[in-house]
Amino acid sequence: MHLRNSDNNSILLGERRLSSARELGERKIIELIINALDRMPNMVLPFGDDASAVDIGHGQLAVVKADMLVGKTDVPPNMTARQAARKAVVMNVSDLAAKGVQPLALLASIGIPPDYKQVEIEQIAAGLNDGAREYGAYVIGGDTNEASDLLIDCLVFGICRRKDLMTRSGAKPGDILAVTGRFGNPAVGLKILLGTLEVQPKLKERVLKSIYSPNARLKEGLALAKAGAVTASIDSSDGLAWSLYELSKMSGLGFILETVPIAAETQLIAKTHNLDANSLALYGGEEYELVVTVNPRKWRKACMAIEKVDGELLQIGVAAKETKIVLRSGKEELQVEPRGWEHFRLHPTQK
Amino acid sequence: MHLRNSDNNSILLGERRLSSARELGERKIIELIINALDRMPNMVLPFGDDASAVDIGHGQLAVVKADMLVGKTDVPPNMTARQAARKAVVMNVSDLAAKGVQPLALLASIGIPPDYKQVEIEQIAAGLNDGAREYGAYVIGGDTNEASDLLIDCLVFGICRRKDLMTRSGAKPGDILAVTGRFGNPAVGLKILLGTLEVQPKLKERVLKSIYSPNARLKEGLALAKAGAVTASIDSSDGLAWSLYELSKMSGLGFILETVPIAAETQLIAKTHNLDANSLALYGGEEYELVVTVNPRKWRKACMAIEKVDGELLQIGVAAKETKIVLRSGKEELQVEPRGWEHFRLHPTQK
Repeated sequence: MHLRNSDNNSILLGERRLSSARELGERKIIELIINALDRMPNMVLPFGDDASAVDIGHGQLAVVKADMLVGKTDVPPNMTARQAARKAVVMNVSDLAAKGVQPLALLASIGIPPDYKQVEIEQIAAGLNDGAREYGAYVIGGDTNEASDLLIDCLVFGICRRKDLMTRSGAKPGDILAVTGRFGNPAVGLKILLGTLEVQPKLKERVLKSIYSPNARLKEGLALAKAGAVTASIDSSDGLAWSLYELSKMSGLGFILETVPIAAETQLIAKTHNLDANSLALYGGEEYELVVTVNPRKWRKACMAIEKVDGELLQIGVAAKETKIVLRSGKEELQVEPRGWEHFRLHPTQK
Repeated sequence: MHLRNSDNNSILLGERRLSSARELGERKIIELIINALDRMPNMVLPFGDDASAVDIGHGQLAVVKADMLVGKTDVPPNMTARQAARKAVVMNVSDLAAKGVQPLALLASIGIPPDYKQVEIEQIAAGLNDGAREYGAYVIGGDTNEASDLLIDCLVFGICRRKDLMTRSGAKPGDILAVTGRFGNPAVGLKILLGTLEVQPKLKERVLKSIYSPNARLKEGLALAKAGAVTASIDSSDGLAWSLYELSKMSGLGFILETVPIAAETQLIAKTHNLDANSLALYGGEEYELVVTVNPRKWRKACMAIEKVDGELLQIGVAAKETKIVLRSGKEELQVEPRGWEHFRLHPTQK
């Protein structure tokens, strides 16, 4: 129903304003916050892109991203403090990778429960340093606080030439849809950690590596930005399907997937345990592949740039005028659902 | 005892590594973290300064600061969500003010308890916007999370000319020690809020304003940086005494205080209630005045710069070679103690 009685509307509005964060969900909360903010004139990246940017003159942008890791929701069972801190860095580096920006420095605001031990604090610091150095950056500052749960809010900062910045909004119909790796292992790993799936130790170890030691596709992002072949780019931390819907929304088009890029381990486990491998790969989250669209005339250039840094670029489909996202399977078209990781909600794979 | 048996030392070390965050205290925790980090070559600002900086070429620095507000420890009773969010911005703007840097943009990573209501979330966003706009900046991005306590981690970002940056380390013996305002009201206000002090409503309102609506001395910081008169600068968010000790440590000298800059309300209430006004002003915290040292030959220039922006610059003492910090009172010298606000510890005014 599109027409509403204005009185009803205001009553609904009144009710809604008493909704709890849990009822609202993360995406609605973000919308509420953005609506309350004055817009910076000539914002380089819109709200909702992977990172934020400020024009600093000389054709350069400062690109910044902050993303908080919360112990209760973002740290899976048996992850060490060092791994958690490294992950907090990787999450943020991944967002800069999606913009094609080298992180230079990072700050970490840390919330520490009062009963945390010195060794754990040292491990957190070591993990921050691991993550920063792995991607060529340094931790240059931060802040510590007493908190009831472990919190690590990392802020990464980098500089890029304005013309190199990759955004979410430049995809054109006909562009090649590609990813930097295969999906599904974190979703499978979560099932293992939650005790709903058992697999043999060697395989388990490989799957859990994607959760405990995720990697940001920084060298791939930098190579793609330099090649100038990418028309839109996003990281897949909210899941592949969700990333496609974001690209679709920001670029005003749709996607036809010709294949779902499924990790070998996920493929194998899905077969053995009668799980839907496509779903595991599409609706996971906490994955850090880049999802990009490439001008078909520059596809070879993009592939060569990625090859040079020992990465991979997998064509998985094509951008299309119609704003739907479907998986083409023979003559059939299966609708890809707009769901993925969201705070305040149950993770889809837990449903 | 300076000489230690190495075995004892390692046992002590082993024991100490099992200490809890509460036993260690914030300053020891920060030391542990810094020790675990690789140093960025040619760091512009050392760890422990108010903010961090990266050389971005063209004689310019990017200056960044992140400081987290935690509901449980940083939000006093009866503070609204809007005030808390604004305070989260002010805390960070104050640090940039101390460096003489105009904040351009800010990011906010927010942790929201699941039972928070929509109206409260809208208030948080409004408070962030209030703070940013008040100081000429914009919120350009952020991150929301589910958390068990309200968390607002703000990251402010600005650019400055390298030569304008004010650090903590340039004070010289003979420099004039000055502050941008008077101290004590937040410490008095905390007593009122904790119920250990009762004052008349008008006075109470004025005192509590310093807690609910603190102000960063941005225009003062910018004016002082532009005047080029300041040799060292720090904000006083950990208390006046603590700020003096920080300046002392980073500049390798001491201070002789000739007067303690006490707020009129604190003065009055201390007199009526038989409290030590000097202590309230020296050992409080959550105050956002700038504490600076000024080259005496440039004192007039500094005063004129501050006058132009309708601020005040109060001379309170002088920097001295000897690394002690004392309050001179007639022929007596009273030791100023190295204490102030510290997370994980009881607030000194609560002791």
